[in-house]
Amino acid sequence: MSVDALFAVLDYAGIWFFAYSGGMLSARKSLDPFGAAIVGAVTGMGGGTLRDVLLGELPVYWIEEPSYLGIALFGALLGYFTSPWAQSLASRRIVLNWADAVGLSVFCVIGAQAGLAAGAHWSIALLTGVMSAAFGGLIRDIIVNDVPLVLREDIYALAALAGAAAYVGGVTLGWPVEAVTIGAATLALMLRGCAIVFKWSLPAMKISD
Amino acid sequence: MSVDALFAVLDYAGIWFFAYSGGMLSARKSLDPFGAAIVGAVTGMGGGTLRDVLLGELPVYWIEEPSYLGIALFGALLGYFTSPWAQSLASRRIVLNWADAVGLSVFCVIGAQAGLAAGAHWSIALLTGVMSAAFGGLIRDIIVNDVPLVLREDIYALAALAGAAAYVGGVTLGWPVEAVTIGAATLALMLRGCAIVFKWSLPAMKISD
Amino acid sequence: MSVDALFAVLDYAGIWFFAYSGGMLSARKSLDPFGAAIVGAVTGMGGGTLRDVLLGELPVYWIEEPSYLGIALFGALLGYFTSPWAQSLASRRIVLNWADAVGLSVFCVIGAQAGLAAGAHWSIALLTGVMSAAFGGLIRDIIVNDVPLVLREDIYALAALAGAAAYVGGVTLGWPVEAVTIGAATLALMLRGCAIVFKWSLPAMKISD
Repeated sequence: MSVDALFAVLDYAGIWFFAYSGGMLSARKSLDPFGAAIVGAVTGMGGGTLRDVLLGELPVYWIEEPSYLGIALFGALLGYFTSPWAQSLASRRIVLNWADAVGLSVFCVIGAQAGLAAGAHWSIALLTGVMSAAFGGLIRDIIVNDVPLVLREDIYALAALAGAAAYVGGVTLGWPVEAVTIGAATLALMLRGCAIVFKWSLPAMKISD
Repeated sequence: MSVDALFAVLDYAGIWFFAYSGGMLSARKSLDPFGAAIVGAVTGMGGGTLRDVLLGELPVYWIEEPSYLGIALFGALLGYFTSPWAQSLASRRIVLNWADAVGLSVFCVIGAQAGLAAGAHWSIALLTGVMSAAFGGLIRDIIVNDVPLVLREDIYALAALAGAAAYVGGVTLGWPVEAVTIGAATLALMLRGCAIVFKWSLPAMKISD
Repeated sequence: MSVDALFAVLDYAGIWFFAYSGGMLSARKSLDPFGAAIVGAVTGMGGGTLRDVLLGELPVYWIEEPSYLGIALFGALLGYFTSPWAQSLASRRIVLNWADAVGLSVFCVIGAQAGLAAGAHWSIALLTGVMSAAFGGLIRDIIVNDVPLVLREDIYALAALAGAAAYVGGVTLGWPVEAVTIGAATLALMLRGCAIVFKWSLPAMKISD
């Protein structure tokens, strides 16, 4: 599989999983299916849209290729309508967190790659990685008036940063891009997954208001 | 009246009505006049701004033509200062909903037209239509910390989608653009208006958290 | 000192102070250090990012110059970790408000300058000034789910507007740009500072819902 094809597959996968998390959250918030489609599409395509806007790659990627929107809507509506079923398997929160985690781990690598491809400094590529990974979920949570997962969960931005750093580091060392890509995304997913399973967290400032 | 002039008139009308809704909501939230001007300008010009950014038509439309800002500020302050008067006529919520509905029905058509003009697929033109129609009000509600109308009201994104679809369909069939434009905007306004008057809604998932 | 160097110094100062306010607010909201870094970076660089996107100056300014990110992260983490210390000196709210005020007064001038440099009408340069000044703090407050300071505090957008107007007016009159820049930023800071110290406010509409 070529590097381009690998990135395309990961891109679609990330959009689908993020959109699924958006659809599922919409069901929990008692939105109707159209609201779920909007929240899901924004969650799935928000990170890549921000990335394209900031880097000046306009029009944004989904304007000229309708299949991205199709994948996002499919994921959003599946998340919406399977939400009651997810409840019987386990807490919806767990499913939502894992779908979000897959999107996060894919987009931190894609975002870092886009930053490097635009000629940005490695530190900026880390930032575009974290932003691509976190923005969709951030907008999702702001729209439905939740405190954003990226701020509630400690190992979230950190997992995205680790994935982006592993990608940038591996590419800088000249390792094969396919292996670096898959390894970096896996690292981010493992970190985030451990945080979900073992409830890992960083110490926060405890200050009364 | 030429097609260009028609679109210009509709654009100003949409900005004015959305800005009016923003000014009126600002009064209800006890903001001062400067806050109302900000919320109104963002509501009126937000949808078109997002459309221009995503399509890469930069600088955005209001940078080079100050009259858009003037119309938005006029609408916002009128909405702010007539808010007590609206109360004596009927519930402010009704007036706000109708001003918002006019903006919605105009911008779904303008947004779809901009998408088609940028060479996007018809499905993407529907999306740019819905986004142009919904974004200003979404930002308005997020800023003042309301649950967005687009998520609370069932026939909202759906009305915008119907208007955008009618425009795209009519243009594809080769019908006269002026008639298609006015017909599509009227359809969206009627749908949204029926939802306001008759409290139409779609079934939502009822799931306890 | 050349005009360019003056603007560069002010830009870094504004980013640092806004990021500091973001880091401090993050501590008050019990975020972890990574959340604080995100909120601080968004607060510090948000206004300039919006300005660049709307004017079409892409990629945005911090993509090619990593030192902006460095300054923002430094400010954010300093604000985060000095938050308990600020408590013992005075109310954190006061420190946060003053850091925010310095950012505001610098960015209203920089934003107005960017608008004029892009060939915009003077009224639009006022708008880009106010938006650059207010956007970072607006996003900061939306992310942590506070009612935005720009809407809660009456002399906020007004102070930014005064600074932007003083800059645009002074430049139009042909006065020396360095003096106009420093004078306009000082005016905005004094207005905002008086509002903080003397609790100045504008009359707001008092309407029960």
